[in-house]
Amino acid sequence: PMPEFVNLIRSESDFLHSFQYSPVAGLPELRTKFINHFEKTRGVKVNLEKHGCIVSNGGKHAISNIFACLLEEGDEAVFMAPYWVSYPEMVSLYGAKSVVVETGSFDVFVPSLDNVRESITAKTKIIVINSPNNPSGTHYSEEWMKGFAEILKDFPELYVISDEIYYELYYYDPKPTYFYQFDESLLERTIIVDGISKTLAATGLRIGFTIAPTELFKAINKLQGQTASGANSLVQRALCHFNFDNITTFLIPIKKHLRDNAEILGESFRKYNLSHLWYQPKSAFYYLIDFSSAPIKEKYSHLDDASVEICEELLEEHGIALVPGAAFGCPNTARISLVSEKEVFAEAADILLRYMSNS
Amino acid sequence: PMPEFVNLIRSESDFLHSFQYSPVAGLPELRTKFINHFEKTRGVKVNLEKHGCIVSNGGKHAISNIFACLLEEGDEAVFMAPYWVSYPEMVSLYGAKSVVVETGSFDVFVPSLDNVRESITAKTKIIVINSPNNPSGTHYSEEWMKGFAEILKDFPELYVISDEIYYELYYYDPKPTYFYQFDESLLERTIIVDGISKTLAATGLRIGFTIAPTELFKAINKLQGQTASGANSLVQRALCHFNFDNITTFLIPIKKHLRDNAEILGESFRKYNLSHLWYQPKSAFYYLIDFSSAPIKEKYSHLDDASVEICEELLEEHGIALVPGAAFGCPNTARISLVSEKEVFAEAADILLRYMSNS
Repeated sequence: PMPEFVNLIRSESDFLHSFQYSPVAGLPELRTKFINHFEKTRGVKVNLEKHGCIVSNGGKHAISNIFACLLEEGDEAVFMAPYWVSYPEMVSLYGAKSVVVETGSFDVFVPSLDNVRESITAKTKIIVINSPNNPSGTHYSEEWMKGFAEILKDFPELYVISDEIYYELYYYDPKPTYFYQFDESLLERTIIVDGISKTLAATGLRIGFTIAPTELFKAINKLQGQTASGANSLVQRALCHFNFDNITTFLIPIKKHLRDNAEILGESFRKYNLSHLWYQPKSAFYYLIDFSSAPIKEKYSHLDDASVEICEELLEEHGIALVPGAAFGCPNTARISLVSEKEVFAEAADILLRYMSNS
Repeated sequence: PMPEFVNLIRSESDFLHSFQYSPVAGLPELRTKFINHFEKTRGVKVNLEKHGCIVSNGGKHAISNIFACLLEEGDEAVFMAPYWVSYPEMVSLYGAKSVVVETGSFDVFVPSLDNVRESITAKTKIIVINSPNNPSGTHYSEEWMKGFAEILKDFPELYVISDEIYYELYYYDPKPTYFYQFDESLLERTIIVDGISKTLAATGLRIGFTIAPTELFKAINKLQGQTASGANSLVQRALCHFNFDNITTFLIPIKKHLRDNAEILGESFRKYNLSHLWYQPKSAFYYLIDFSSAPIKEKYSHLDDASVEICEELLEEHGIALVPGAAFGCPNTARISLVSEKEVFAEAADILLRYMSNS
């Protein structure tokens, strides 16, 4: 399905005025809409005297700008495995060091709060969380977020990037919660990243946004002004006319599709007696399959990480395309997309689990 | 006027397939079109075994990516005053040092080749030229480009960025020429930057491109993949259907408008007996007015550079908006845009020159 804002791009009004530069930070109406929608969906208040919103060329660009403005040589950035592949690349690009909190399928890829706490040093400048998570396809629980809020209170100098690009894409309750909902004062050092790519199925239109504390907002605005300018004005203009409340309705069939495919996948685990390796995905487009204790791993027992070899074998001999988990910081795993058409997905899930069970 | 590709964005075919990610380097058809158009208009051949083309979020983003990939701490980047304001900001962002070759209205803002040669040291990594030039509104002569080619032959390690974003916007013959047209072997270390912003009056659509030697192309592709992704897929798709040969026709009325306003401006110089301060602009959207030996400068004789003060006075007391030349590396100058509507422009030019002549 296509969101209604597609038609807004084509409608006569405004169209001819949408080809010139937008302000570096984005169209003011759109920035206000993003803030209002954020406040409404997360149930918190953004203090406009302490925060600014800036539109960038997609969520990736937004995060890159944040890291570029915050990180200096010698700083540490903490994030959790499985992590989005670009985090460590960006961190090293800006001269800082990545510190990864490990997880595994045994804890449904949710990092232990003790490990998070231990990962923080005097050099830690920022912690990044991504819930719902790419590639695990889950979001952290309310309890986890409350515990995370407690940790943050003990480290008042830390910034947090909350990468919420999959926020609306949960298909099992409860919906995602965030640490700052339990202590709004934490918002003062929280940097929110979101965008339309996932929510409006428009990854190629390159509209992401950042809500950041004022000083950081100003730095990002300056950096973006010198390195890229404002984001696409045509898409921004169309979004100004779009009713963000309609996202929920737009996503109903998409969420149903993801839930159905997740169920099909779970069934395949049961069919091949691998239920003990299954966890319930709840959000985003993915599932991170864990080969580490599956029968197929025995074939590769000489390797510490067989994710690349297994993915190659699956692609070349079985026609199944997965992304090796090594890139996400999780050896012996692979990311499955739940987006494929149902019949194709069911067939692929069966082939995959049969392969995994070595039967 | 609006280019016909505006309608292509709205046409039914392809539209619904244009919302997903483009490849990081851009749609292959579009990259081929950009290369073909470049070859046709500049009369040179791009060796695809030695070069790659990558689409970025506008020309500014393209240049930022190039500097980020090429420059290291301690390197020097040479460019000519007046320069585009973002060059020195980007160079310092990536830890390198800017070396500026000075010019003035006395030589129509064209740097002397001797000064260019003297600016090159063992640390020089790159030379940037921008012809047609923002903000001077002129392009370097064929003779200058031939001499520049000779200099480059003496420094075989140097890269050159040729920022050609205003290439098609010349309204006085001869059309812009480039050093590599006189020695095509120089193309092997030349990085071309161009885009649709100026040529198609679409600054807000954020499509620029780079043609770079293969190694650099690969580095830019990797950087862009980790920090921004491919450019807007919708606009890229529309451009795939656009006949670039139609640019010439599209630009006829725009060039006439620029020529007319340039003539009006020259007339105002004559009217107020300041012809000795006039030079003939030929390309791009601008004229760089020089206050340094105009009567009004006496009022500010205590200041080395009065460009900010003069622009403030013009804005606040005469309603004329110019950009102070200090930011372009030219003290006591200001940039005039020739884009305004003819009647408004004529009135403004008269006010401006009367002010300048102190009469």
